[in-house]
Amino acid sequence: MDYPNDQAPGAPIRSGIPEHGRIPKYYAVKARIAVLLDELGEGGLLPTERELALRHEVSRETVRQALRELLLEGRLRRQGRGTVVAGPKLEQPLSLASYTEGVRRQGRRPGRHLIGLDRFPCPEALAAEIEVERGEPVWHLERLLLADDERVGLESTYVGVARAPDLDTAFDPDSSFYAYLHDRLRIAFGDADERIETVLATPREALLIGTPPALPMLLIHRLSRDADGRPLERVRTLFRGDRFSFSTRLRGAERR
Amino acid sequence: MDYPNDQAPGAPIRSGIPEHGRIPKYYAVKARIAVLLDELGEGGLLPTERELALRHEVSRETVRQALRELLLEGRLRRQGRGTVVAGPKLEQPLSLASYTEGVRRQGRRPGRHLIGLDRFPCPEALAAEIEVERGEPVWHLERLLLADDERVGLESTYVGVARAPDLDTAFDPDSSFYAYLHDRLRIAFGDADERIETVLATPREALLIGTPPALPMLLIHRLSRDADGRPLERVRTLFRGDRFSFSTRLRGAERR
Repeated sequence: MDYPNDQAPGAPIRSGIPEHGRIPKYYAVKARIAVLLDELGEGGLLPTERELALRHEVSRETVRQALRELLLEGRLRRQGRGTVVAGPKLEQPLSLASYTEGVRRQGRRPGRHLIGLDRFPCPEALAAEIEVERGEPVWHLERLLLADDERVGLESTYVGVARAPDLDTAFDPDSSFYAYLHDRLRIAFGDADERIETVLATPREALLIGTPPALPMLLIHRLSRDADGRPLERVRTLFRGDRFSFSTRLRGAERR
Repeated sequence: MDYPNDQAPGAPIRSGIPEHGRIPKYYAVKARIAVLLDELGEGGLLPTERELALRHEVSRETVRQALRELLLEGRLRRQGRGTVVAGPKLEQPLSLASYTEGVRRQGRRPGRHLIGLDRFPCPEALAAEIEVERGEPVWHLERLLLADDERVGLESTYVGVARAPDLDTAFDPDSSFYAYLHDRLRIAFGDADERIETVLATPREALLIGTPPALPMLLIHRLSRDADGRPLERVRTLFRGDRFSFSTRLRGAERR
């Protein structure tokens, strides 16, 4: 049946099974396991690969492919030696409000962990974006983003040294950079341009965040300006695609 | 060198190569091919797998894995029997403005192609979202999204039949649904909530859009309301993750 009464409007039509043509065997198993996940509920323990292979009369390799996709999509997660049903993705607002606030609002404890703070001569591409002369010193602040001690993202912030001269001594890298700019330097945010895309985690990112390599990630590029409209910082934030979604409210009576 | 002068601020640090630990062989080849892509420029023809394997002294299987990731990320695309360097991703604004306008602004020709228009009793999950009684009739309009005749997305729109009674007779499914609501039914848009996440293409979606199965996609959930604040439609739009990014401007002096 095309529209079973329990079909969620956010789910793929026909559970993703084509009207015509062959259904890959692993996908048929994946669709049946997805139903099982709903029955088990969050935190429920998945049967072993071996049991699933016996139950669905397919090879363990076929089960493994189905589980691999469910893991990449964040429907499952590893826990100790087992695999359990994951909770819903964290829903983070696309706004100038903080990562900290967004995570807190969902009842999670946000955190940051310093990977590195370096000072280097501004390369050409960055110079054009943040309106710093090429070769002038800029900071690169790289931090892991945490939610309840789980590593969920990796953030690179680029800012001219002239804007924040004492970043290496006066700033606690586990705290909010925006609060530092505001409270210590009296820099007020004006607006920001953001662009969101999906990319695969590189080996370095996978190692730092603790994801499987090549996991689909959400990458947010941000260029923010101060209240006078001067470019302030260029940020590259990578979020686990299996753990995050981003929401926004669109206003206005434009039509489409 | 960590920050070569040509490092783009949107690129992964150290080209994604870990400071410590092993670099997977395929990834080392991928990073070298990525440099080659920049040299070749958009539309440039990639050497064959065989040539790349010889040049980098690795197996063809290793080259294939590198090319697979570059294809999934939209750095490469198939053209006829060859593989060429892809252009930049289309940048679509997150706004109530139309898909049509967004694509046009980038010099592409937008289009839509009807997959199906069905009428069915409203299931429970949808009823709660669009404030239609469970069992009342709703439309499901499913369309392919095109850019220059290339299939780039798949959109499902759910709207109560009471809202748009003659959708099956008075609406041209290749045209803008929003223009129809506005011009014919005098329904003005108020606002919309959107949520964006990354998912893998299902076999059905891959077949309809013509992507490799399990390609990372950007999925946008939308619930829009009319000018009186009444829920109007629930939309599920899937965009090729290798072809699209979404941009937004954030305003306000909130701090992070």
